[in-house]
This record gives sequence, C-alpha cells and structure tokens, in this order.
Amino acid sequence: MRFLVTNDDGIYAEGLIQLASSLTDIGDVTVVAPENERSATGHAITMHFPLRVRKVKLPGLDIDAYAVDGTPADCVKLGIDKLLEEQPDFVFSGINRGSNLGTDVLYSGTVAAAIEGCIMGVRSAAFSLLLGDEMDYAYSGKVAKEVAKIISSNDLPPNTLINVNIPNVSEEQIQGMKVTRLGRRRYSKNYEKREDPRGRTYYWLAGRLIEEESGTDYDINAVNDNYVSITPLHFDLTNYNMIETLKSWGFEKETISKAK
Amino acid sequence: MRFLVTNDDGIYAEGLIQLASSLTDIGDVTVVAPENERSATGHAITMHFPLRVRKVKLPGLDIDAYAVDGTPADCVKLGIDKLLEEQPDFVFSGINRGSNLGTDVLYSGTVAAAIEGCIMGVRSAAFSLLLGDEMDYAYSGKVAKEVAKIISSNDLPPNTLINVNIPNVSEEQIQGMKVTRLGRRRYSKNYEKREDPRGRTYYWLAGRLIEEESGTDYDINAVNDNYVSITPLHFDLTNYNMIETLKSWGFEKETISKAK
Repeated sequence: MRFLVTNDDGIYAEGLIQLASSLTDIGDVTVVAPENERSATGHAITMHFPLRVRKVKLPGLDIDAYAVDGTPADCVKLGIDKLLEEQPDFVFSGINRGSNLGTDVLYSGTVAAAIEGCIMGVRSAAFSLLLGDEMDYAYSGKVAKEVAKIISSNDLPPNTLINVNIPNVSEEQIQGMKVTRLGRRRYSKNYEKREDPRGRTYYWLAGRLIEEESGTDYDINAVNDNYVSITPLHFDLTNYNMIETLKSWGFEKETISKAK
Repeated sequence: MRFLVTNDDGIYAEGLIQLASSLTDIGDVTVVAPENERSATGHAITMHFPLRVRKVKLPGLDIDAYAVDGTPADCVKLGIDKLLEEQPDFVFSGINRGSNLGTDVLYSGTVAAAIEGCIMGVRSAAFSLLLGDEMDYAYSGKVAKEVAKIISSNDLPPNTLINVNIPNVSEEQIQGMKVTRLGRRRYSKNYEKREDPRGRTYYWLAGRLIEEESGTDYDINAVNDNYVSITPLHFDLTNYNMIETLKSWGFEKETISKAK
C-alpha cells in the first residue's frame, strides 16, 4: 500500500509525523505537506503564483518528504501529478490538531486535501484529534491503520472519502467507532472589534459556538460520547432534492429565460 | 429586499459593479467584498490575522460599500455579523469573471461566499459569466434580478443555494434557463515544471481540461448549449448512501473500535 500523507498544520506538525510513522508499519509513505500552517484554508488552490518544493528530513522517519509553499489541496495535486513516481493507493490527511466536525469541514484544509485525493482518483481519508490540554496522537495513528485496512479490503467508491474524528481521551475511555453524519454548528458573535496601537479599527474572528444539532447519529454527538466518528463524505454539492422544485418555480419558462 | 453583494474578483471588478447596479433596481444593496482578487480561495476563512475594513465609493453607485482584506467567506461572515445594520434577505455573489461549473465549484470563492450566506441563515446565490473575448455583464445582471424575484416569491429552503452560470453569447442567442446538476471535470498535466532566472525549480498550475462528464442535465452541457444553468446546491457533504455500507464493513465492531 502506497500512501501520500499531507495535512494543514504544516509538515513539521506532530500529528503528521505520527500519521506517517504509523502508516510505515503497513505500507510505503511519502509526505507532501505545506511548509507552513494552512488551517482554515478550505479548498483553496494556488493558481496565480508558482509553487516551490523543498525536500525535507522528518525526525525519526526514513521516508521521502516534500515541503510545498502552498495549500493542502496544492500538495495533493502536485504530489500526485509531479512528485510521486507512482499514483498512490491512498491519500491520508492529518492528524489534524483539533476536530473537523459538522459544518466546519467546509473550512478545513485537512478535509479539502482528502477531497482533492478523491478528485484525483485516489481513495482518501482525513483524521483529526480533538483539542485537549495534551495532544497525544499515538492512538489516532492506530485508528488510521485500522481505517486503511478496512477501506483497502472493501470497495470504497471513487466519490467517497472518510472523515475521522478522534476524541481526546485515553484509549481505555474510547467506547468504539461509530459511523455518523455531519452535524451542524452555529456560531454567534463571530468577530471582535478592536483598535490597534495606532487607533485604527480591526476585526478578529472569535466564533463562539452557540448551537449544535443533536442526535445520536451525528459526528458531534459521537465524539462527545467518546466514540471515534467515521463519516462518509462526498463532494457533489448538487442538491438533487431541489431540482424538480426549482423547475416548478418557473426557472425553465421561456419568459424568464429571456430575462427582462 | 436587502442584498449583501460580494465576489472573489475584488471589489472594483466589473462583474460586481454590474450585479450591485442591477439589484438596486429591485432592492437595497450593500457591497462587502475583498479588497483584492481572491479567486480559487475555496471556502477559506481568516482566523489567524485581523481583518481591516475600508469604506469605498463604487463608480456610478450611491450605496454603502466595504472593502475587506480577506476572503469572500470572510466578507459574508463579517458583513452579516458587524457591517450591515440588519440581516440581509439575500447574499448574492458575483458576477464572476469566468465559469464555476462542475467539480470546480469546490475551488470557487464566489460559490463559497454563497454557501457562507446559507450557513448564516440567508438565501444565497452565486453568478458567473463564462470567459470570452469580451465580458459584457449586462445580461447577467438581468438574470440576477430574475433569480431574486423567483426565489423571493418561493420558499427556498435554508440549506439550498443557487449556482448560476451564464453563457458568454449575445442575449438573442440565449436559449433559456435550465435547472441542472453539477457535472464533473477532470484535468491532466496539472503542473508545468519550470526554472526561475536563478536556476531554481518551480511548478505552476496549468490544468488542461481532458474530460467532462456529459448528459443533458449537467451544468456544463447546458452552458455549452447556450442555456443559463441554474443548479441547486447544498453544503452537507455527508454521503448518506454510504452510511449503511460502512457499517457493514465492520467499522462499528468492538474489536476495531479498540484499535490495535
């Protein structure tokens, strides 16, 4: 099994080094990851600037590793297109420092990298460890190996990636794995308005969580109950349920089509 | 009708000025848009830096307009949270210079802005005019007004936004509107490898289109046939079809949950 490993916390992040290290137990690993932190980049790609690549040595690992001055999605695209000799069997992204749950996956560079893997025709998964006072990625590394084994011995369709969130508790406290759907998070008072030392106004994203959609099959609930959350994602944003409705609203009428 | 208008081409882009201008015919318009071009930013948000806001005067328009040194999603979040006095009825994004079709919507800052509008509880739409030798946004502005009228007189669910792509042909050549699904685009030879004047290697995203999924109900085909494409989008990335399948693969077994 050949793995391309990436993340959005940057190539020297502890979570990435754990992920790469764990996966060397079961396959060949190449790391292609952002030179610097690129969290909350969403699915950004770099079109208007050149990308530089630097070969790096990761501590304790004897594998090829490339630092790219781009986004997680750039790393996957460039890695598969130019840096890896062969198409990898898997794109694994993470282990992210902090959760990627519910609506927040839309902002996640970690998840975007796995989506990009899918678009490039490679089976992909994203891994995130919830924030805590201590960040011990060892158990998350074991989870990644199990996920690799399960998806390699089954037929993961090319339009599906796996989003994994791991509770930040001791291995003994983990209740099991749960297959979930994305929950929904809402924030209020998104921005704080402040003044800089020169008296000029600026705004800084704060984002206090005010509401989470609840139900036992949601990812957010699963991790709250100390389950590892396994969510199948796709990247077809079409809302099929609404196609006939929109037609009934007259979007296809000739009078509207020749807009006044 | 109160509109928040944004884009990813930057606040002085012709397409945004046309959109804002057209919508003043039917409602109140406030512009909150990126200071600079932010295309292909995906759903990036700015967490680690402050955002600056500058009030600007847009040519020929007597409306409030704010330039933000952030992404399109930042503009919508900050606009609704801090800059607008009231919650807008609509977030309209565009008119983008170039299409946002098929898989490419994942990279689009224009579409991300409309998704962010939905997340904030506002009915939203994204508008894009296909690239051509000439870019005349006047007809696209009329389309935007029609879309506003249709969605304001119907019940657009809060999880649905509308993605509109307009062929770059004369108004007479437009065949009508078509409700579509997202197609799929694949690129090959994504990157060109080059050397800079100092002999150092760099890579630049080229992206030659090699394949488009075809079928009359796809957005890509609709615009090729000179129809205005109207695609309902959602932002729940859960692949519901795969939930039971993943369970059958043993993801919820106790032995796996206590990963080795």
